Amino acid sequence: MQEFLDSLLAALGPDVVQTNAADIEPWLTDWRGVYKGAAQAVVRPVSTAQVSDCLRLCSQFAVPVVTRGGNTGLCGAATPDASPNNIILSLDRMNHVRSIDTIANTLVADAGCILGNLRRAAQEQDRLLPLSLAAEDSSQIGGNVATNAGGVNVVRYGMARELVLGIEAVLPDGEIFNGLQTLRKDNTGYDLKQLFIGSEGTLGVITGVALRLHAPTHVRSVVLAAVDSEQQALELFRLVFGACGPRLQAFEFFTDACLDLVLTHVEGVQVPFADRHPAYVLIELADTADEEALGQLLENVIGQALEQELCVDAAVSSSLAQLQALWRLREEISEAQRADGPHLKHDISLPIERIPEFVKTAEVQLRKVSPDCRLFIFGHFGDGNLHYNVSRPAGADKTWAAEWETRVADTIFEEVMAYGGSISAEHGIGQLKRHAFLHHKDPLQLKLMRQIKQVFDPQGLMNPGKVL
Amino acid sequence: MQEFLDSLLAALGPDVVQTNAADIEPWLTDWRGVYKGAAQAVVRPVSTAQVSDCLRLCSQFAVPVVTRGGNTGLCGAATPDASPNNIILSLDRMNHVRSIDTIANTLVADAGCILGNLRRAAQEQDRLLPLSLAAEDSSQIGGNVATNAGGVNVVRYGMARELVLGIEAVLPDGEIFNGLQTLRKDNTGYDLKQLFIGSEGTLGVITGVALRLHAPTHVRSVVLAAVDSEQQALELFRLVFGACGPRLQAFEFFTDACLDLVLTHVEGVQVPFADRHPAYVLIELADTADEEALGQLLENVIGQALEQELCVDAAVSSSLAQLQALWRLREEISEAQRADGPHLKHDISLPIERIPEFVKTAEVQLRKVSPDCRLFIFGHFGDGNLHYNVSRPAGADKTWAAEWETRVADTIFEEVMAYGGSISAEHGIGQLKRHAFLHHKDPLQLKLMRQIKQVFDPQGLMNPGKVL
Repeated sequence: MQEFLDSLLAALGPDVVQTNAADIEPWLTDWRGVYKGAAQAVVRPVSTAQVSDCLRLCSQFAVPVVTRGGNTGLCGAATPDASPNNIILSLDRMNHVRSIDTIANTLVADAGCILGNLRRAAQEQDRLLPLSLAAEDSSQIGGNVATNAGGVNVVRYGMARELVLGIEAVLPDGEIFNGLQTLRKDNTGYDLKQLFIGSEGTLGVITGVALRLHAPTHVRSVVLAAVDSEQQALELFRLVFGACGPRLQAFEFFTDACLDLVLTHVEGVQVPFADRHPAYVLIELADTADEEALGQLLENVIGQALEQELCVDAAVSSSLAQLQALWRLREEISEAQRADGPHLKHDISLPIERIPEFVKTAEVQLRKVSPDCRLFIFGHFGDGNLHYNVSRPAGADKTWAAEWETRVADTIFEEVMAYGGSISAEHGIGQLKRHAFLHHKDPLQLKLMRQIKQVFDPQGLMNPGKVL
Repeated sequence: MQEFLDSLLAALGPDVVQTNAADIEPWLTDWRGVYKGAAQAVVRPVSTAQVSDCLRLCSQFAVPVVTRGGNTGLCGAATPDASPNNIILSLDRMNHVRSIDTIANTLVADAGCILGNLRRAAQEQDRLLPLSLAAEDSSQIGGNVATNAGGVNVVRYGMARELVLGIEAVLPDGEIFNGLQTLRKDNTGYDLKQLFIGSEGTLGVITGVALRLHAPTHVRSVVLAAVDSEQQALELFRLVFGACGPRLQAFEFFTDACLDLVLTHVEGVQVPFADRHPAYVLIELADTADEEALGQLLENVIGQALEQELCVDAAVSSSLAQLQALWRLREEISEAQRADGPHLKHDISLPIERIPEFVKTAEVQLRKVSPDCRLFIFGHFGDGNLHYNVSRPAGADKTWAAEWETRVADTIFEEVMAYGGSISAEHGIGQLKRHAFLHHKDPLQLKLMRQIKQVFDPQGLMNPGKVL
């Protein structure tokens, strides 16, 4: 391995190639502290050419490569395994916006750009980069694309995939995949860039992305609706979707148990209803202009919903402060869960129309395994995406989560599969869900994925132990 | 081959397997009559299981398979080559809607369903299937997806790809790819269905598709704006996109030469302007409701455009009849071209912001080759997609097109590539553009495509001679 390191240092220099154990140490864990691995070097290139040089040498010396973006992933995809031969490739120094065009509505950026910075860069030009998620001020766009990130506005704009027009990537042998185009239409053969999206660093290293921008949304209006069941939330979704069409920016859901947790652990939040209800739906509309018309549309739709008994109560925001206060009830759930202690996260998706039935039967199954566990269900209801989280029974020791992790996940995933759902809606596979993925995924699809992996990475050096 | 036919007949019966020369004859040409091939049988299965049986036998006997949808393609992708061993696989009898869900906003259908029928089925449920194109009442959804069809509403809803949630396909060895899910989010490994989209029948046979539906658009408003240049059209696009956001349903362009051709060859069309202008832009806005607000928005934006000199004249529709009359000016261009005689179609796309520059330099290059050819430029400007069509010089013989085809295409495609464009925006490759595709496409991408083809179709039996 010394020969490899010498060659790498000679090619890229000691500023790019860090081999000191103390320098490497901070790069070996995921941000949740669940995973820890090993590496012989951290490589922080400043250009696509340097990434190419690095991968060529890794290929030559059969050195495994773990690409890391902002280290905000929840499945350990950017944390190395235990092999001391790994190198960690960080794109953090490749962080320049290459171009923004407000006629073509495109943004081209290095993979290491922070998502939040790109959102602001677009906003300064009166355009919207609609990918929005909790970690956006630390996550990098290369990682967002490599994991096909989701977030709160998927119901309107789709996942990261739907925003990607082009990708520049370096293949494991160092060849540069020049797909960084901004075309809206290109029907010339197989759309290879799709394979990189969601591949979690297992096929190559994304070094640049071209994204589609949307028209700005200058006005917003939010309502929190109380519902008596998931079925009522579904019917409400149908009404709002049909009436508001593309203005529907978010359709989020949380149970009263989630609200309770927020009220317990987070200061300064208030419930806008006199009574409590089984669950709540947060709906945001947004439009290019005309706040009054948008507010009126939301009032009308909610009026209809109350009349048709598609919700039991509703609080419409009448100021930005109120809007933000309503959003906090939804956004603080993760923080409240953290404060409550270790818990089991399941980022699942379902055919939307089957959510009510799933919620019922999944709980029955879960209670057979752990009768007293506490259930916190929330998420992007409009996408069929639930964060189906499970915490220790009241009074149980905090080690409960670790002990029950596998049994609980197995139970939930079995139900998810029975309903035609997905065991990973937006978080990906990484290390965390690899076992479940290999167990539940259709064997023919797994076979094809392995063959495609073989095409791109015949030596198996890209992010070993992740996904496949 | 007799053994193959006997086995096929035994498996599927004589109603499905047609081997009579007279029965086969109508299936051997594309609808334009440009291509003609050969086949030993036409197979018209009624189920995915029958498709699977058919492909298993084809694989066993090494028989090439050409899948045909509605036969509306413009590149000969669904027409067999000259090999007498081919079979033509038609999905026309697999034409049932499997499900429509107005909560999840999904439609699942057999691949042989006619696109127009699916649009109407969605509309009956107050939902929109936004894929819309001239051939929609004969094209089949399987073919639309296999060729990643475009059309007039891509500026708002994207290509067919962006509407596909799931695919069921049969692989060349007869295995069934069960990807017919309706999930909006599923981050479990590589998104294999993307490979079938746009593969033009070279990787397998799509037998079913799950599509995403959109909110209905109940109100429309259209303006025809006269512009003095492509640059002005660009600036107008920027204004309209920013102001109207997701209401922008179509942004179409055509030159005065196109208008002239329509006025010459089509009866009952009228120009809504006192004077003629270098080019025209047809803009359609659509929304869920409130015709008055939509009309007002369009009036305001066009008022601004006139004030800022982003167009030179404008005619806004004030009735459905007027709206349709304005659309005819754009839609009749193809018919007018047909009436004018043989011509050379080039379905190209460009980075939108570079269209004005491209149009100038491409014409200079083209005139070096053919000084007096007639140019008809129109298309989906908002997507950067031009139909850059070339006709014989005035007075030239109608054989001109055939004689000049290669030289003209080579010249145009060279310019397209120099501007970072695509030689096929929405029509695909098929037979027509195969040579140009293999010449212009990035060699690394071609290599990867060939390797992926090898993964799915190691015997090379799926639509030989197309794309790769």
